[in-house]
Order: sequence, then C-alpha cells, then structure tokens
Amino acid sequence: MTQARLMDGTALARRIVEDTARRAAELTARTGVVPCLATVLVGEDPASVTYVRMKQNRCRKAGITSRHVALPASTSTAELVGTLRELSADPTVHGILLQHPVGDHVDERAAFEAIAPEKDVDGVTFASFATMSFGLPGFVSCTPGGILRLLDEYGVELAGKRAVVVGRSAILGKPVGMLLLARDATVTYCHSRTRDLSAAVREADIVVAAVGRPRLLRGQDIKPGAVVIDAGYNAGNVGDVDFDSAVERASLITPVPGGVGPMTIATLLEQTVTAAEAAAQGLAAA
Amino acid sequence: MTQARLMDGTALARRIVEDTARRAAELTARTGVVPCLATVLVGEDPASVTYVRMKQNRCRKAGITSRHVALPASTSTAELVGTLRELSADPTVHGILLQHPVGDHVDERAAFEAIAPEKDVDGVTFASFATMSFGLPGFVSCTPGGILRLLDEYGVELAGKRAVVVGRSAILGKPVGMLLLARDATVTYCHSRTRDLSAAVREADIVVAAVGRPRLLRGQDIKPGAVVIDAGYNAGNVGDVDFDSAVERASLITPVPGGVGPMTIATLLEQTVTAAEAAAQGLAAA
Repeated sequence: MTQARLMDGTALARRIVEDTARRAAELTARTGVVPCLATVLVGEDPASVTYVRMKQNRCRKAGITSRHVALPASTSTAELVGTLRELSADPTVHGILLQHPVGDHVDERAAFEAIAPEKDVDGVTFASFATMSFGLPGFVSCTPGGILRLLDEYGVELAGKRAVVVGRSAILGKPVGMLLLARDATVTYCHSRTRDLSAAVREADIVVAAVGRPRLLRGQDIKPGAVVIDAGYNAGNVGDVDFDSAVERASLITPVPGGVGPMTIATLLEQTVTAAEAAAQGLAAA
Repeated sequence: MTQARLMDGTALARRIVEDTARRAAELTARTGVVPCLATVLVGEDPASVTYVRMKQNRCRKAGITSRHVALPASTSTAELVGTLRELSADPTVHGILLQHPVGDHVDERAAFEAIAPEKDVDGVTFASFATMSFGLPGFVSCTPGGILRLLDEYGVELAGKRAVVVGRSAILGKPVGMLLLARDATVTYCHSRTRDLSAAVREADIVVAAVGRPRLLRGQDIKPGAVVIDAGYNAGNVGDVDFDSAVERASLITPVPGGVGPMTIATLLEQTVTAAEAAAQGLAAA
C-alpha cells in the first residue's frame, strides 16, 4: 500500500518565519518601528514559562522585540484586565499574547476581551472568533490559521470537500471548523459525545484531530486517500492520531512533532508583524 | 405510513409572549421600569417597514414600549453608528433592533458592533455570536434561539445526535449550528457548495433547513424518524422543505407558516424583557 506524503510543518514554518523577519527588518528600516509582542504570564507554571521563553526567542530571531510582563499567581481578574488594557493602549506594543491557563481564580474570558482586537495576534478574542467565522478580515487563532496554511501549501482543495473536526475547543476545534467552512468545505464537528466517532470520521476527505487524546484515531477510521491533520499534543510527542496505521491510509498526513506544532508560533510571529505594519501605516496616515 | 407530529410554533410562541408580558408587568409594577425596545430602520423598504411595525405591535401587546428611529436611506455608516451608540448609552432603552438590510452603502457590521452587547436582544453582534458559540451567558440570535426552544418543547434529545444544518448565514445557519454543538449534538454544516447534499442530510437525526431555497429538501432526503426544522422563508409561505413528502418520513416537523416563524419575535420580546430586568437590577444594585 502507498504511504501518505508527510506535510512538513517545520519547513513551511521556517519559510514563513524567514519571510516575517524580512518584513520586520524592512518595516524597521523604513519607519523606525520595531514590531513588539507583549507576553503576559500569570504565575510560574513551568510549562507556561517554557512556552513564553520559546516564543520570546523566536521573536528575537525574527526581528521582533518582546516585552514580558510577569504577574504573580495571586493576580486578580481586575489587575490582569488592567494590565491588558494598558498594553492595548500602548502604541509601542503591536501584539499581545496572554499565556494560558491563567489560574482558576481569574476570569480568562474577561482577560481575553481586554485585548484590543487589532493587537489580538493570538486570535483569542470574541471579535477574532467572529471574523474567522464570518470570513472577515482579522487575526486568526494561531494553530487553526497554521493548519489552513499547511493545507494550502500542499494544494489541498477544500471547497465542497467533507471536513471532520474532532474537538470543539474555543482556541482550536471551533475556529478551525469555521475557517474550513469559510473556505466552502462541508464541516462536521465531532467531540466526546459523538456516537460512532469512527463512522463519522470515515466520511471525511479532510480530518482535523484536535482533542488531546493520544492515538484516538487509527488507520481504520481514515477514509483511504484522506488528508489527516493531527493537532493533538499529548505527553511523549504523541498525537491524537495513531500515525503508523493512519499513514497507510491517508494521502497526506502531518507528523507529530514537525507537523502542526511549528505552524503555531510562525503564525503568531507573522501576525505580530502584520499588526506592526498596520500600526505604522495608521501613524503615517494620521 | 405514520405522519410526523407537527411542532406548533404558534402555540409555543403565544405561551412565551404571555409569560413575557407577565414578567414585563411585574417589572413595571415593582420598579417603575417599562421595558423598551428601540427599533432602527434605514430607508423605507416596504418589507422592512412591515416587519418593524409588526414587531412594535407585538411589543405593545406584551407591555414593552418601542421607540422607533426612522433614518433616511442616505444615512451614512458614521451616522448610523452614532445613533446606535446613543441608544446603547441611553438608560431608558433596554434592547436595540437594527432592521436589516441597511443598504449597500452602509457597513452593516460596523453598525451591529455599535450595539452594546447587553442590549443586543436580536443577537447580531460578534459578542453574541461568540457567547452562543462558546456556550456562555448572553443573548441569542432570535431565530436560532427560537429553534432550540421548539426542540426542547417537544423533548428532542440533542446530545450525541447527528444534526445537519443546511445554510451558513451569520444570523441563522452558523449560530443555530453552534447552539446545537453547545448542546452536544454532532453538527454538520451544509451549504451551496456541498456535494451530494441529499446523502449528507440523510445522516441527520435533526435537520435544520435555513437556506431560503423553496422546497430544496424533499422526503427522500430525510432519514425516517428524523426531526425536521424548516427555517426557510420563501415567497408564498413556502419553506425550504417540501412539507408533503417530508411529513411522511419525519417524526416531528415544523409547518410553514406556524413553525419557526412565530418563535423569532417571541424570542425578541423575551430577550428585551430579560435585558430590562437586568438593567433594573443593575440600577437597584448601584
């Protein structure tokens, strides 16, 4: 049996970041504006600290300044909202990333909504969700946006195709389904309450697994020739798809790691520079 | 063959409006606050004039004041946004309805976004779409909200069921799918680009037709025993479903007229009183 072609997120992300770095350098040379991403971290969760540091390193390499705001774990919703409003109003900040989780005592939604939509380069606000859903201009959630870029890079036709999204999180499953729908796919949302998940997934020309359950989908669930996007992130670099059996059935598949993962940060960096370009243009027009 | 039971939207809407009128009267007696719906109409499109008048009449019967703002067809986006912001800031107005369409020269989205979410009783803002999508408290779009009420009234179980929404408009198809997803249905969005619509619809335990194409769906497209919601509104009181053939296959079906239609205004009135109650409570707490 023919094995699926791998969708190389690492290579595509590298090209996006190189292009982003060129745009950042050009913007700085032309206007003096250095793109700036503000990263906000509440508490000291080790994984979150690592994620934020990784994002800062990538920013630096792409010619993007990062401004880090470290808040104590005891930060209240009102304090966090205040910080995010200040950053939203600060003309030297172009993008804002609130690292989540923010702690159970904080109203995460209130915090997200304190981010100005034009600085929401992580795509977490209601406004960004709605613009994604309605096919309007705006920032996309980074992982869903990265998935669409990967599909486009590999020439996957979306219009009229059956797409099945497994998972319905606010940051991944829901927006990726809406982006696919805006591109004229026929989209089905499956989730933990779906009966006969396997039958539903077997209808899919394009499968997006975004649920965080190791190897939930196996080769037998994949329609021969389908495109399989594994956005799962589980311990031990295991995706939501059992790669070894799915690779025998799919036509295209993302490996884990090296598939969807690298696209997330690339999209974040790209959107930060886009925000900085828009801000610089706004200044020039004012 | 057994015919489907009819889902009587007229009767359910009447009960909702009666209950709403009781709540309005109780609020006015207790606090002196009379619930007020502002209706904003741009231009003099005859259908729009009729719709607005109908809504005003229903308001009056339910103990809701309506304040009508008639703007000339030449109204600019900035002027319309200004009017909607004033109404959003006016403490005597509890709900705002912008009758659409507003004319091609107006940025309808900018206008909708000028409506304060706490007065968005028609459920048209980005914030309302997002709260519907994420299962958070907020106002729903009136027709989708009315459809969910009908399903609940007739005891239709949603969790784990396959729901197919035909149509993906911002005001009807997209939000009704999100409301069904939030209630744990497995939801598929079909639309004009869907290939083999009939096969996709035949998978559905619950079909919502919301596309505005007369008799697009026929009995042969309906899985025996499915629940059929016809939200179509076409000339001559014809729905998106061919009633005569679908009624032979479905277990429950909404007639046109008298099914989904009456639920829309009932939901609008109910949400206006809910907004007034919340505003009065806010005043009492202040």
